[in-house]
Amino acid sequence: MTNNTKKKAVILLSGGIDSYTTAAMAINDRFQVCAISFDYGQRHKYELGSAKKVAEFLGIRNHLTIKLDLRQIGGSALTDNIEVPKNQPLENIGNEIPVTYVPARNTIFLSIALGYAETVGASHIFIGANAVDYSGYPDCRPKYLEAFEKMANLATKATVEGSQINISAPLLNMSKSEIIQKGQKLGLDYSLTISCYDPPENGQACGNCESCLLRKKGFIEAGIKDPTNYFNTSEKN
Amino acid sequence: MTNNTKKKAVILLSGGIDSYTTAAMAINDRFQVCAISFDYGQRHKYELGSAKKVAEFLGIRNHLTIKLDLRQIGGSALTDNIEVPKNQPLENIGNEIPVTYVPARNTIFLSIALGYAETVGASHIFIGANAVDYSGYPDCRPKYLEAFEKMANLATKATVEGSQINISAPLLNMSKSEIIQKGQKLGLDYSLTISCYDPPENGQACGNCESCLLRKKGFIEAGIKDPTNYFNTSEKN
Repeated sequence: MTNNTKKKAVILLSGGIDSYTTAAMAINDRFQVCAISFDYGQRHKYELGSAKKVAEFLGIRNHLTIKLDLRQIGGSALTDNIEVPKNQPLENIGNEIPVTYVPARNTIFLSIALGYAETVGASHIFIGANAVDYSGYPDCRPKYLEAFEKMANLATKATVEGSQINISAPLLNMSKSEIIQKGQKLGLDYSLTISCYDPPENGQACGNCESCLLRKKGFIEAGIKDPTNYFNTSEKN
Repeated sequence: MTNNTKKKAVILLSGGIDSYTTAAMAINDRFQVCAISFDYGQRHKYELGSAKKVAEFLGIRNHLTIKLDLRQIGGSALTDNIEVPKNQPLENIGNEIPVTYVPARNTIFLSIALGYAETVGASHIFIGANAVDYSGYPDCRPKYLEAFEKMANLATKATVEGSQINISAPLLNMSKSEIIQKGQKLGLDYSLTISCYDPPENGQACGNCESCLLRKKGFIEAGIKDPTNYFNTSEKN
């Protein structure tokens, strides 16, 4: 199949495990992939370096980074002067929507991806949303993603003219360990990724935020060595 | 009613007639209004000056301007190297989606407004969308706005916790002349606004793009003098 006949997809690429694995799965499914990342004023801007590395690893040539300062809106530990919680009991994660929730973030990112998909002629938008080992964000839930897809199919010139846009979240019902195992089968190098919400200045991972805790748990449960460079080496699994 | 007990609304404010009138109607309906404008790489960036003027006129204290370069996505005469059509027959406007359509623009703007609404505690987002005297954009149609509202009510922490978010488009079924007449009753000064998609360097209106043509028609049909400063004075109504 040549590039001209391949189905096109836009991937939301953060630089973490989930979006990297999602992108690899889309490529494995023979999609021609364009990636989009967001420099949105996030505390963990280091992730943009990881997004660049994983795009290169996967051979993604079209990788757009959109600058959008969500600190102007705030309301989150990731974009405002609110402390990132540390060392929570794992069983509490996902029970309540935490302060790391960024107001309307997935809606904003998917909307911009929708515009990008239209200009490149993509039929699919892939998002690494997960509703198992996740923080409890409302905009990762299946019913939210379904509603976004319905809206998107009424929003654009392309859809009025008969195209369909599909919101694909292949990790939705997978645990973090299943995601990591899937990525290992696809030959991914997770040392390129960063999940940490509150990385120390040197770009290592803190090891204690909810995102680091879920990542550690995933590697342990997958029985795969965690390649993460944690700030405090005693925090390594 | 004090400010503390007033319902809050976020208004998408472009600097044109429709959003100005919408904002005035919301204020008239006793909403406490926050405005949001977008510096998105539009050809007609002059509209941001008008947005500032109308916000001041209406006494809106919270007015956020979000910078987001949609030229990175392109695909529109407003954000790309595509010529803005001029002097079309009025009866043709709205029959086909024109090249001034910006991919997913209202979805992107409403999504960012959704995040802003959540942080300020607003129950309503007002948009000056119109499906009568308009360019035929898909993201101005009632069924699109309804689908966005449904999605929005699944997207945020606020809605999970029981709040409702309403997408209000009070101009949806009004003609441009009815909108102008409504604004005049509310004491608005339309000389503060600009509608032109392709303003000459001096910030006047071109008089010939679809947006200028619809504006001119609106003032003529309303029987109200058009205060617009057109580039070529022979183009005045």
